[in-house]
Amino acid sequence: MTDAFSFHLLARDGEARRGEISTPRGAIRTPAFMPVGTGGTVKAMYLDQVRALGSDIILGNTYHLMLRPGAERVARLGGLHEFARWPYPILTDSGGFQVMSLSALRKITEKGVTFRSHVDGQVFDMSPERSIEIQGLLDSDIQMQLDECVALPADEKEIARAMELSLRWAERCKTAFGDQPGKAMFGIVQGGDDLKLRERSASALAAMDLKGYAVGGLAVGEPQGVMLEVLAATCPALPSDKPRYLMGVGTPDDILRSVERGVDMFDCVMPTRAGRHGLAFTRRGKINLKNARHAEDPRPLDEESDCPATRDYSRAYLHHLVKSGEALGGMLLTWNNLAYYQGLMADIRAAIEAGRFAERAGEIREEWMRGDVPAL
Amino acid sequence: MTDAFSFHLLARDGEARRGEISTPRGAIRTPAFMPVGTGGTVKAMYLDQVRALGSDIILGNTYHLMLRPGAERVARLGGLHEFARWPYPILTDSGGFQVMSLSALRKITEKGVTFRSHVDGQVFDMSPERSIEIQGLLDSDIQMQLDECVALPADEKEIARAMELSLRWAERCKTAFGDQPGKAMFGIVQGGDDLKLRERSASALAAMDLKGYAVGGLAVGEPQGVMLEVLAATCPALPSDKPRYLMGVGTPDDILRSVERGVDMFDCVMPTRAGRHGLAFTRRGKINLKNARHAEDPRPLDEESDCPATRDYSRAYLHHLVKSGEALGGMLLTWNNLAYYQGLMADIRAAIEAGRFAERAGEIREEWMRGDVPAL
Repeated sequence: MTDAFSFHLLARDGEARRGEISTPRGAIRTPAFMPVGTGGTVKAMYLDQVRALGSDIILGNTYHLMLRPGAERVARLGGLHEFARWPYPILTDSGGFQVMSLSALRKITEKGVTFRSHVDGQVFDMSPERSIEIQGLLDSDIQMQLDECVALPADEKEIARAMELSLRWAERCKTAFGDQPGKAMFGIVQGGDDLKLRERSASALAAMDLKGYAVGGLAVGEPQGVMLEVLAATCPALPSDKPRYLMGVGTPDDILRSVERGVDMFDCVMPTRAGRHGLAFTRRGKINLKNARHAEDPRPLDEESDCPATRDYSRAYLHHLVKSGEALGGMLLTWNNLAYYQGLMADIRAAIEAGRFAERAGEIREEWMRGDVPAL
Repeated sequence: MTDAFSFHLLARDGEARRGEISTPRGAIRTPAFMPVGTGGTVKAMYLDQVRALGSDIILGNTYHLMLRPGAERVARLGGLHEFARWPYPILTDSGGFQVMSLSALRKITEKGVTFRSHVDGQVFDMSPERSIEIQGLLDSDIQMQLDECVALPADEKEIARAMELSLRWAERCKTAFGDQPGKAMFGIVQGGDDLKLRERSASALAAMDLKGYAVGGLAVGEPQGVMLEVLAATCPALPSDKPRYLMGVGTPDDILRSVERGVDMFDCVMPTRAGRHGLAFTRRGKINLKNARHAEDPRPLDEESDCPATRDYSRAYLHHLVKSGEALGGMLLTWNNLAYYQGLMADIRAAIEAGRFAERAGEIREEWMRGDVPAL
């Protein structure tokens, strides 16, 4: 434990970094995967389970929480940690991304964004200052600046406009956040698929001397190659002594290739959402439990796993639960998927420490490619 | 453990009985509440949790399991215990009740019942013999005879016809079940709200010397008083050395009053279904977590409980989860409710042993009546 938010690099292997973020609520081992706890719950999981899988930090969505139960209410109840019973670090996004993707009637001006709630139609104004205020009410440990993320493809002028606006908002968020030694406010690099704009955004944010930097506006439908190209151009423009967070990413392979390019933190709904839709991530690749080949297969997803969901339940039973729409199907597959993701992160961290990240990444990919065990 | 199915009375207090059923898969302490595991899962619960709450036996629904995943498939996978990872006793119903309530195009003849699946429209024939065959394929420890349950109100002639048919089916099920020392086949008393028909049914079944007896066709919409009157007339007509099972019952108060009349076993979807609909059973009565009075209440459902769901999560958080339709809401409230029901059964068993069942039942009811803690 520590009183101040800080980041230390423990090892490097090529561009891949092994580090640790210290916060008053506990340490975050990087590269880190942050399970998404949208509305104060990692869907279909007890948070005790999420912790036991090796999660050092979870993510809360400002947009969802401000609408329900409301930031002021969460504050009156002692903050999000107390509310959701997660005493460890929490990162909150700014709300901006979900405003764009979920709400109606959104309008963006220099001042901020106006939108209509998808829950009850109420109209909200959110400025950079209000986003930071809300994240403060939630008592978030790592807060994100409000930014504007344009949908790709878009023309350069539009991408540049949104990126410059995001830089001005970053300054305003920094001022609003002020001096909070135990917490951090991260800036977000924007600039779409334009490498020059990305470099300009990263350099301008670096000059603001923030406690961490995110790369936003990726994994929004572009090919993986474009994302990796942007990362390769962006990461070197960011200070090497600050954590780097790639927002909303991704598949296990996206994570491997992004770590390779110097990313330290990830969040994604993929393991939890896929789990509720009958998909299991395993060391042998992705397995669709809806598939009839599993209907009479008494074998578990992976007999060598430490996770009960992975090791102890037959594919036949999981298939039955998924086909019947039983809650336990989503509970078990989400558990399996988060176990897989956190196991992958532990594997990555150990490989960087051992100076064999590239080799280990190759082995992991090879095992995915060999695919699932043959059907019975 | 034991090789044979047997029942021993350990204590009596008025008509209330404290007993134990021995089976090769473990003992069942009575009075017992059996959580309902419709399709091979007690909804929104890990079976490890169900066991830890003091459940000695769960119920499986023959109708659901024969349609999906299918009885032959369950048998090929090693039976329901192996399939669902529940190595302890399982009771299966005959499928008859769900055929009446869920399927379309049902037709009842002397031979059996023909119906159309609510899942895929396939037509099935189920005779008394086929019901026992299916329950055998599931490897059920306590199997139920196929019976016909008429909806009340009905005229005496119709009730009598269905009751007599059920008696003939009981004989056929007994023959089909044969001699299986480690397992049991229970007969089901029918006769609607007609006490004479109930007595005739109970006496005829008693003469068949079955290993246990159920009372069916109750808690189907009639007032509690009618149910209790039928029980008071039926239980004395059943052999005192065999377990008595009241099917599909009920509220905590139904259970108290039925134990008082000599019932040993219960099953009901109420705690699990209510949990998924935002209702919590507690020692202070039923609490509706949807109610706005809980929105900012940091107190747990019951700070004195041993169950984490009951003791550790605030009402405000539960309210939020329920209002947001989050899976964790159903998971926590189902857990709370099954903990409450199994705690109630333990309380009942201890009171009978101590010879103070009536007194304890009064105290429990008084606490319900005092109601929930005042709003903040």
